[in-house]
Amino acid sequence: MELSLNTVTVKEKWGLADCIEGCARHEIPGISPWRDVLHAMGVDAAARQIRDAGLTVTGLCRGGMFPAADAAGRAASIEDNRRAIAEAHTLGARCLVMVCGGLPAGSKDLPGARAQVRDGLHAIMADARAAGVTIALEPLHPMTCADRSVLSTLGQALDLCDELGDGTGVALDVYHVWWDPDLARQIARAGSRIAAFHVCDWKSPTTDLVLDRGIPGEGVIDIPAIRAMVTAAGYSGNYAEVEILSKAWWARDPEEVLPLLKERHLSAV
Amino acid sequence: MELSLNTVTVKEKWGLADCIEGCARHEIPGISPWRDVLHAMGVDAAARQIRDAGLTVTGLCRGGMFPAADAAGRAASIEDNRRAIAEAHTLGARCLVMVCGGLPAGSKDLPGARAQVRDGLHAIMADARAAGVTIALEPLHPMTCADRSVLSTLGQALDLCDELGDGTGVALDVYHVWWDPDLARQIARAGSRIAAFHVCDWKSPTTDLVLDRGIPGEGVIDIPAIRAMVTAAGYSGNYAEVEILSKAWWARDPEEVLPLLKERHLSAV
Repeated sequence: MELSLNTVTVKEKWGLADCIEGCARHEIPGISPWRDVLHAMGVDAAARQIRDAGLTVTGLCRGGMFPAADAAGRAASIEDNRRAIAEAHTLGARCLVMVCGGLPAGSKDLPGARAQVRDGLHAIMADARAAGVTIALEPLHPMTCADRSVLSTLGQALDLCDELGDGTGVALDVYHVWWDPDLARQIARAGSRIAAFHVCDWKSPTTDLVLDRGIPGEGVIDIPAIRAMVTAAGYSGNYAEVEILSKAWWARDPEEVLPLLKERHLSAV
Repeated sequence: MELSLNTVTVKEKWGLADCIEGCARHEIPGISPWRDVLHAMGVDAAARQIRDAGLTVTGLCRGGMFPAADAAGRAASIEDNRRAIAEAHTLGARCLVMVCGGLPAGSKDLPGARAQVRDGLHAIMADARAAGVTIALEPLHPMTCADRSVLSTLGQALDLCDELGDGTGVALDVYHVWWDPDLARQIARAGSRIAAFHVCDWKSPTTDLVLDRGIPGEGVIDIPAIRAMVTAAGYSGNYAEVEILSKAWWARDPEEVLPLLKERHLSAV
């Protein structure tokens, strides 16, 4: 697999233009922007610079966040997802990664939030298919269920893909799924629907529920074993996208981090 | 359901004798000791005082912790589990709660750790059956997979029960399972094998992976919905055991906490 840099990995130091230039200079052939840095740079300018640099856009992060406390909030989310689909199309992104959202503020209705995710996805699929943008459902670690993602397992994501049909797939991040006793079976079931493969590591101990990820090799995940399953299942994307949310790594100079990620891509992925 | 106090809930302020006396005085009819406070008091003295106070021992926390880096470590763990079974028998505990253990130090071999859990359970079942002690497998939240429990879902726990046979059950803690998309189905499958029902709450946001639990009603878990599923499935234990690991709650005076737990037991469980 080739290496792709998710821009959140260096978010404290680099904007998107820096990331594009840095990937080109460090010979990292893939990039996956978050929408905040994309908007800061401008979508058309970003698309042009990425194309000029010869980078593959392995994904756009992120759509989703469907559940909301009222109908206006849900409609606004769907509109925002339509904009994200258009942006992914402009970038030529291989997929739009969906972080589906947590419970609406004040709600304890988990089945209801999951229904809202389902409804939101149904509402955007026509746009996604028209734009040729693959909707990549990303199950997030169950510890994010309250505030980020009621989509919690690969099996649940694939059930949604089965229901939504063409134009859907999954974004598989080892950090979110490594613990799953059903992982091997569900990866085999996913097959070529794996639209993105994300890597980082689970540090033991982990001191923060969001911002304490490790770089590959720094933690306890057997990343090569999961990579082998993903490859055997039929993942044809040929990129491993490194996505690190970490206060510690964000404080480091990307000029040091990128070579280290390249090394770990070879030794620990 | 009646209320049971897991002693860890007040661990910074009260030893086991205080807990027994406090439960009797506050008319909380159930108690579930951790082994550290049990050993500090002495098993026979504790059993006598609990019996004299008329309390039901809803569980003993905890056995498990099977995976180890070498055979000597695994054998030591099995011996310790045999002592825990004997203690649970002496106390007349309804079950011995099993926190099965995480990855051995330095290991990334999750399937291997799960096999060690399975082997460890097989090794102690004869003792458990001879003592009449139910082994209650407690799936822990996936965020504890590295360091506390490679047993991560109720479905996985029930698969183990199916394999181990008579004398096994599950300890179902809403904190660990509330996020599971397969929860309703697995609770129904568990049926009368639910040996313990534990309650607390998931705060949003949660700031610590171990010590930031909420009391019932403080978080986002729909505890009454899960309680209804548990009851409908055939849980006959008739106790909800409150188990709070929380730096904030540990700092409070148990004389204030216990009445609050009684109130929440009625209003939020």
